[in-house]
Amino acid sequence: MPNITFDGPKIEDIGKKRELIKTVTDAAVKAYGLPQQAMVIVIKENSPENVGIGGELLIDRPKTGK
Amino acid sequence: MPNITFDGPKIEDIGKKRELIKTVTDAAVKAYGLPQQAMVIVIKENSPENVGIGGELLIDRPKTGK
Amino acid sequence: MPNITFDGPKIEDIGKKRELIKTVTDAAVKAYGLPQQAMVIVIKENSPENVGIGGELLIDRPKTGK
Amino acid sequence: MPNITFDGPKIEDIGKKRELIKTVTDAAVKAYGLPQQAMVIVIKENSPENVGIGGELLIDRPKTGK
Amino acid sequence: MPNITFDGPKIEDIGKKRELIKTVTDAAVKAYGLPQQAMVIVIKENSPENVGIGGELLIDRPKTGK
Amino acid sequence: MPNITFDGPKIEDIGKKRELIKTVTDAAVKAYGLPQQAMVIVIKENSPENVGIGGELLIDRPKTGK
Repeated sequence: MPNITFDGPKIEDIGKKRELIKTVTDAAVKAYGLPQQAMVIVIKENSPENVGIGGELLIDRPKTGK
Repeated sequence: MPNITFDGPKIEDIGKKRELIKTVTDAAVKAYGLPQQAMVIVIKENSPENVGIGGELLIDRPKTGK
Repeated sequence: MPNITFDGPKIEDIGKKRELIKTVTDAAVKAYGLPQQAMVIVIKENSPENVGIGGELLIDRPKTGK
Repeated sequence: MPNITFDGPKIEDIGKKRELIKTVTDAAVKAYGLPQQAMVIVIKENSPENVGIGGELLIDRPKTGK
Repeated sequence: MPNITFDGPKIEDIGKKRELIKTVTDAAVKAYGLPQQAMVIVIKENSPENVGIGGELLIDRPKTGK
Repeated sequence: MPNITFDGPKIEDIGKKRELIKTVTDAAVKAYGLPQQAMVIVIKENSPENVGIGGELLIDRPKTGK
């Protein structure tokens, strides 16, 4: 605690996850004034079939990845 | 944002997901007065082994799907 | 269960909450094939000081409500 | 409702899930004064590649499971 | 981590929160085989105006508290 | 989307929220390869009466803020 959750599409590259965890943990330490060890981050990866933006499933979108 | 999350059992039929996304996005536009493009919906599908209702795992229930 | 969560700005008008609950419950009944009584919806209202979009707090945005 | 979510690593043994559901449902009945049937628990299982504690992915940790 | 979230109505009595935290932490220690210190529980309290069950806001229900 | 949630104690200083939003948005842009405008962050602030760590409510802890 604090608990930080990322809810988005898949991040294929584990190196990018590592970097994300590091940067966000540091930012949270500054914001909360709590020790690094307290920061818990969970990355939730969702299939494009399970995300809708603007009334449309991601899987039905022409090309953009968003 | 707003972010809308559905946390339930699996929805097998992608057509039903499409319809759900559309109807709920429209309802959210009316409720929040924000543009359709702002609405983000995520569908989380859970295994019956990971859901407990009334103290019992869904996978242990006789027949009802709830 | 299913549990449905709306995470957005405040909805001032309780009538709009009522309508939202009704429409979304009906849509969920169709999508999941589960009884209306199973549908649980929670509306989370967030202060504009606690929401960031595109790297900016909502409270710092010029005029748009999104 | 109440909805209770466990967000952690995988629980391999389904017997442990059963026990967890039962004990936590009973505890929730006492805390809320609501009927057992109202209690919904969802167990979310996360891969060690998707959890960071103290700025480090679980998958990169030497041995401890936490 | 694990992170455990209770999303329900208000629990007025702090003694009941204390007891809930204790029992659920113990149950989680048994289920995950992780140290007690790892268990983080957050109680989210929701107004009856913001919860809908079966298509109806809690605040509109005749008498039952659920 | 992606949706990023911070669930922790109160952050008193709005300047710290601003900085957190900015840094985390940038980190997410790098991790997901999606435009800055897609990133939505919500900060949830919890009372120490509603958080339990290691089986104990924060409000009952001697002095440490964690």
